[in-house]
Amino acid sequence: MSLIVQKFGGTSVGSPERIQKVAERIAHAHQAGNQLVVVVSAMGHTTDELIELAHEVSRQPPHREMDMLLSAGERISMALLSMALADCKVPALSLTGSQTGIITDSSHRRARIQRILGDRVRTALGDGKVVIVAGFQGVSETREITTLGRGGSDTTAVALAAALQAEKCEIYTDVDGVFSADPRLVEDAKVWNQIPHDLMVELATRGAGVLHPRSVELAKQFGVQLVVKNSLKESRGTRVVSRLSDNQQKKGMEEFAIVGVTADTNKMFIEVELARSTVVGALWDQAAHSHLSVVAPFFSKNTVSFYSDLDAEGEWKKILEHLGTEGFVKDFHLRSDVVPLSVVGDRFSQDGLALAQVLDCLARAQVDVLIGSASALAITVGVAKSQVEQGLRTLHSEFLGRK
Amino acid sequence: MSLIVQKFGGTSVGSPERIQKVAERIAHAHQAGNQLVVVVSAMGHTTDELIELAHEVSRQPPHREMDMLLSAGERISMALLSMALADCKVPALSLTGSQTGIITDSSHRRARIQRILGDRVRTALGDGKVVIVAGFQGVSETREITTLGRGGSDTTAVALAAALQAEKCEIYTDVDGVFSADPRLVEDAKVWNQIPHDLMVELATRGAGVLHPRSVELAKQFGVQLVVKNSLKESRGTRVVSRLSDNQQKKGMEEFAIVGVTADTNKMFIEVELARSTVVGALWDQAAHSHLSVVAPFFSKNTVSFYSDLDAEGEWKKILEHLGTEGFVKDFHLRSDVVPLSVVGDRFSQDGLALAQVLDCLARAQVDVLIGSASALAITVGVAKSQVEQGLRTLHSEFLGRK
Repeated sequence: MSLIVQKFGGTSVGSPERIQKVAERIAHAHQAGNQLVVVVSAMGHTTDELIELAHEVSRQPPHREMDMLLSAGERISMALLSMALADCKVPALSLTGSQTGIITDSSHRRARIQRILGDRVRTALGDGKVVIVAGFQGVSETREITTLGRGGSDTTAVALAAALQAEKCEIYTDVDGVFSADPRLVEDAKVWNQIPHDLMVELATRGAGVLHPRSVELAKQFGVQLVVKNSLKESRGTRVVSRLSDNQQKKGMEEFAIVGVTADTNKMFIEVELARSTVVGALWDQAAHSHLSVVAPFFSKNTVSFYSDLDAEGEWKKILEHLGTEGFVKDFHLRSDVVPLSVVGDRFSQDGLALAQVLDCLARAQVDVLIGSASALAITVGVAKSQVEQGLRTLHSEFLGRK
Repeated sequence: MSLIVQKFGGTSVGSPERIQKVAERIAHAHQAGNQLVVVVSAMGHTTDELIELAHEVSRQPPHREMDMLLSAGERISMALLSMALADCKVPALSLTGSQTGIITDSSHRRARIQRILGDRVRTALGDGKVVIVAGFQGVSETREITTLGRGGSDTTAVALAAALQAEKCEIYTDVDGVFSADPRLVEDAKVWNQIPHDLMVELATRGAGVLHPRSVELAKQFGVQLVVKNSLKESRGTRVVSRLSDNQQKKGMEEFAIVGVTADTNKMFIEVELARSTVVGALWDQAAHSHLSVVAPFFSKNTVSFYSDLDAEGEWKKILEHLGTEGFVKDFHLRSDVVPLSVVGDRFSQDGLALAQVLDCLARAQVDVLIGSASALAITVGVAKSQVEQGLRTLHSEFLGRK
């Protein structure tokens, strides 16, 4: 009898019919003799609707109350799923993040998981029940309800799989797995059967929407078997593993390999001019304090540049204006028209070869590169939002297209 | 009976006495019933002496002849080791890179391995012999002798272990394993029992001298069990593995972890001012063509910055002056007084927290940061060479010291 954690996102539980479909799938796995813990997100756009409601009620909703409000979303979907399972004659029990013992820090809206108790989950499993757990939410040491922010439900699922020592963690989504590029934008994008952990972190950090980097980092660290599958049809899915597969590896033993091209249109580019170089620490302090994402940060002399989440534009503006009045920041630009376009792979650090080829390819396609940097696993360039599709297509055709 | 690849570097075979010691060690492992392939470097400073000789004879020695000359170094050490083994009554056979079938590309002095044939190795092992293979050298498709450049012998050893499907690859060196910092500079630096592949690549790229990143990348890709051990005394050594150990992982499930601080005094900082931003590709093309290392590259508008090997200063000067006459480069600075200082770990990308703490720590120690960037696995800042030791000590004491 093996223990499996399954996670179903907002789309998969987006309507009563879909919830029934998910219940059937779970019933099937249960009857096959598996122990199941199922993590669910809120239905469809519930979370966005609740946020909108809050802003209609209050000009500046307190974060604590926002978490209280939002946590209702998963409460609804998990109760509904549990009911649908009862109809399928499958004994099920729904548990909130707090009831599950998902202990987080106290950063409302962007809390991090510290540990998971899971006693009630183990007891219910022992009683032969399917356990439905609310994703995206936890409870702080001071017993306040918290939410985990972006990627929260994926993170709940993987952290639970680690804590319960589950055989595997299956993330159900509305596509067939991890692609070499967004299949909606790049026609011949392909699904990988497997992808290495470290490259999955880079893909996820750089816009591949299918998994969140936090969940992949947890899976890597705690040795959780992670699989991405389509909830709407049978598919082999993508396994997250320790190294490149033979078809991802090039011919020469030491050649670089490329597994994906991504763009993150939910990110913006931020440039800051500092009053003096020694105050750059203050900027990162502020980001850290608010758990704001910072991708590809670079600083030199008095200038700083990085990408962050588009929906944090207001927070960044407030932080940078505040640092301005303190005399730390001279000027800043939040550029939502500049988007990070990335090539993810392995062994980029040996020399400038991968970088040269990527830039050459973009130049030939007349995609203007405004800024760029590279690490061993990713090359990221800033391009105008209007050129993203052209950039993705030309890079994919060059490095990942049918030969 | 298990097949083990062992590699001994220049120091380990630096004198007749040391060669005899290595032979005894090999004899011991052979008598214990293992099949052994032993990769050796040239004795001590032989390679440097040969390079000096070449420059006394010729103002600009052709790279092909340089490879021919340098390949004599391992020929000497492998023959001597084979003789010492004969004295220990261990049947041994020495093979050059070419005889081993180490096929490389045709870039003299910095060739990359494409594949390994290894027929003669297999036959000799079948005959019960210990096989001594020359590290650092190979042969191109056009039958020219090539050398592999920096990290060549480590790379030979791991590539051989992959090709022969060896049980493990042991890299013998003059320290106890992989440290949290250079123990010559940081008093309470500790040896790790294990270190994850991806972090070992970062440590090696950023100055941890004990392994070369190319060899670690190969080990990761081909699933080679890699161990670093002391050739001068018995030690447990450091195993390169897939994830952090419990003592490297912090308490909270999602907290970042730090495993090492490094500085690379064999690197310099390069700043280039371009005539226009579209020509940056030409610069990386040149680097790629000469297989020059490019660490932490960043470009924005008309400026480019990165670190590269100090001993390639002459080559970079030539390249940049050439690009200047072509009208691509307006100005450049090769700054051998600026050194990359790095903190290596995991989960730095979530927000600016690790970056904020690193900069805060350096500021308190009055170490001036001239430039900096960060990826998920490494934070790298450029500091004056004179402040490197101070920087290393203060960062180690903050993040890795005894608590």
